[in-house]
Amino acid sequence: MSANANAWISEPAARLDAEAAAAARARQQRLTKPPGSLGRLEDFAVQLAGCQGKALPDIKAPHITVFAGDHGIVAEGVSAYPPEVTEQMLLNFVAGGAAISVLAHEAGAHLSVVDVGSLARAVPEGVIADKIAHGSANFAAKPALSEAELTHALGAGQRAVLRAVEAGADFLLFGEMGIGNTSAAAALTAALTGRDAAEICGPGTGLAPEKVRRKAAIVSTALALHGFTGVTPPLAALRCVSGHEVAALAGAFVAAAQEGRPVLVDGFICSAAALAALRLNPGVRDWLFFSHVSAEPGHLAVLQEIGAAPILDLGMRLGEGSGAAAALPLLKLACRLHSGMATFESAGVSDKERT
Amino acid sequence: MSANANAWISEPAARLDAEAAAAARARQQRLTKPPGSLGRLEDFAVQLAGCQGKALPDIKAPHITVFAGDHGIVAEGVSAYPPEVTEQMLLNFVAGGAAISVLAHEAGAHLSVVDVGSLARAVPEGVIADKIAHGSANFAAKPALSEAELTHALGAGQRAVLRAVEAGADFLLFGEMGIGNTSAAAALTAALTGRDAAEICGPGTGLAPEKVRRKAAIVSTALALHGFTGVTPPLAALRCVSGHEVAALAGAFVAAAQEGRPVLVDGFICSAAALAALRLNPGVRDWLFFSHVSAEPGHLAVLQEIGAAPILDLGMRLGEGSGAAAALPLLKLACRLHSGMATFESAGVSDKERT
Repeated sequence: MSANANAWISEPAARLDAEAAAAARARQQRLTKPPGSLGRLEDFAVQLAGCQGKALPDIKAPHITVFAGDHGIVAEGVSAYPPEVTEQMLLNFVAGGAAISVLAHEAGAHLSVVDVGSLARAVPEGVIADKIAHGSANFAAKPALSEAELTHALGAGQRAVLRAVEAGADFLLFGEMGIGNTSAAAALTAALTGRDAAEICGPGTGLAPEKVRRKAAIVSTALALHGFTGVTPPLAALRCVSGHEVAALAGAFVAAAQEGRPVLVDGFICSAAALAALRLNPGVRDWLFFSHVSAEPGHLAVLQEIGAAPILDLGMRLGEGSGAAAALPLLKLACRLHSGMATFESAGVSDKERT
Repeated sequence: MSANANAWISEPAARLDAEAAAAARARQQRLTKPPGSLGRLEDFAVQLAGCQGKALPDIKAPHITVFAGDHGIVAEGVSAYPPEVTEQMLLNFVAGGAAISVLAHEAGAHLSVVDVGSLARAVPEGVIADKIAHGSANFAAKPALSEAELTHALGAGQRAVLRAVEAGADFLLFGEMGIGNTSAAAALTAALTGRDAAEICGPGTGLAPEKVRRKAAIVSTALALHGFTGVTPPLAALRCVSGHEVAALAGAFVAAAQEGRPVLVDGFICSAAALAALRLNPGVRDWLFFSHVSAEPGHLAVLQEIGAAPILDLGMRLGEGSGAAAALPLLKLACRLHSGMATFESAGVSDKERT
C-alpha cells in the first residue's frame, strides 16, 4: 500500500461563501428583534449561509452515518460491556430501537449504518459492509491498524460521504459504535495533544473508578510502546492507537469539507477523530459545528484543543451520534427564524432609537 | 379590592405522581444504552412522567402564551426602543413575523397573545384583551400597579392557563413583551433577593454601558422610595416595582402548577416572575423546567436563587418566550427516546457486565 493511497486527504476543503454569509449577517440586523438577541442562533444561521452559499440557508435533508468497529484493546478489560454488543447494536440500529434510530426518525434524517470493522461475520441486513478486517489489533501490543486497514477505513469515511451527497444530503451527522472505543479515542487524543492519558481516560460506558485508573495505565503504556511522546502526527496516531470506525470518522470529516457539506460533530470519539481530521487538513474547520459537551472527561480537552464551543451541555455520553442529533433541532430553528421572521420594514415596527 | 381576591394563589399546587416517575426511572435503566448515558434527557423524561402521571410521558399539545404590557418607567429613558414597539409587536406576533411566531409554528404549538396592560387603545385582532389599564405607573415615582391592577394581572395569568387547559394543552410555555420590562424585572429581582440593582441591571434590548449604570441608579432609587431593603414579600414587590405582564406571568406559573401542567420558563423576565410565584406558593417548583440562561446579567442571579439548572445557554436575550420555545424540542426528544427505544430484553442486547 503506497503512502499515496491517502493523498486525497490533502485536497483542499471547499471554501465558504463569504458573500452569502455577509448577506445573512445583514439580514439578521433587520429582523424584528434587537440585534444579537437570538445569540448563537444568529451565528449558526450566518455560518450555514456561508456553507450553503445562500443568504437563506436551511436543513432539509440531514443524513446520519454511524460507523461501527471492534477493538482488540478490549482484551485488556477496558470496557464495561462485552464486545458482542457492537454486533447486537448494529441490529438494534437498523431495527429502530437504538437512541440514534429514534433521534433520526424524529429529525426526519436518513440513517446509514456502516460496518467498517466489527467482529460480525455476517453483517445484518440493512447495514452497509465496508470492511477488510474483523476488529482492530490490541494496541497495547501492536499497531491497531495496518497501513492497508488505515487507508481502507479513511476511504470508508469518504465513501459514506459521497453516498450521502449523491443521495441529496445537505447536512451531515456522524456517530460511532464500538465496544472499547473510548480507550482508542483517549489514546488518539493523548497522542495528538501530548497530554497525559490519566487526564483523558474516563468511565466510557460505565467503568468503576479503579478500572478507569487501570484503563489510563494501559493507554499510557501503549503510547510509550508506540514511541508516542509529545505531539504525534495524525496518520501515525490513527494507525497505531485508534480503530476502524475512528479512522472512518476522520476520513468522513475531511471528505464532508471537501464536498462542501456542513457537519455536526458528536461527542468524545467523534471530536477526537475531528481533531485528527483537522491535523490532516486544517480547512476542515469551517465545516464543523460541535454539538455537545460529553460527560466523558476527555471531551473537554479535545474541544479546548480545537477551540470549539459546543451547542449543548446535557451530560450525555452515549455516542452513536446521539448528541449531534439532539443539537440538530437548534440549527434547524436557527434557519427557520432567519428566513421566517419579518423585518422592521415589512412589519412596520420602529427600530432602535439611535442614541 | 379585598386582600382575599388573591386567595386562590395559596391553593396547593398539584402533586407529582411519584409512582409514574419511579416507573419511568426504572424503564430508563432497561433501555439499550449504558444507564445514565442520555444525561439530563433521562431526567427530563422522569420529571415529565411525574407531571403527567404516566410512565411514558409525551408533549403533544404545547401551548405558548405571550403576555404584553407597557411600563411607566420608560419615562426615565431606560429602554433602547420607544414604547410604541409593544403595540407594534402585538401585531407582529399575530401576523406571524415575530421570533415566537416562527418558533410556535415550528413546534406545532398554539400561540396565544394576551394584552394585559399595553398602551394600545385598540387591541389588534387576534390578540386577547384582558386589561383594566393602559401601561403601569412609573415606579420611580409611585407603585407600578394599584391593588386592583395587581389582582387583575395575577388573575389574567390564571385565566390564560385555564383557557389553555380547556383547549387541551399538555405543556405550557410563557413569554412576555413590554418595552421597559427588563427594568421592572430587575427591580423585582432586587426586591425579592435583597441584591443590589447594579448587580442585576443589564442592557435589555441594547442600552449602552453608561445607560445601564443610569438604569441601575434609577432602579436603586426606586427600591428605596418603596422602602424595599433586604428581602421584600412577593405581593408588595409585584405591585410596587413589576408590571402588568410580569404579574400575569407570576399568576400563570401558580395556576399552571395548580392545574398540574408542566411549564418551560423562558429567560430573565419570566424567571423573575417565577421567583415571585415560588415565594407565593413553593409547590410551584415541581412543575417548572428552566429553558435557558439569558445573556441579560440578572438572569444568573435569579436562577441561582431558584436553584435552577437551565437546558440551553446560547446567549439569547429576546424574551417573547423564545428561549423556552427553543428548548422545547429537547424535552420532546427526551420523551420520544424514553418511549421509543428498545430495552435490552426486547432487542437481545447483552447488558453491562456486573463486575
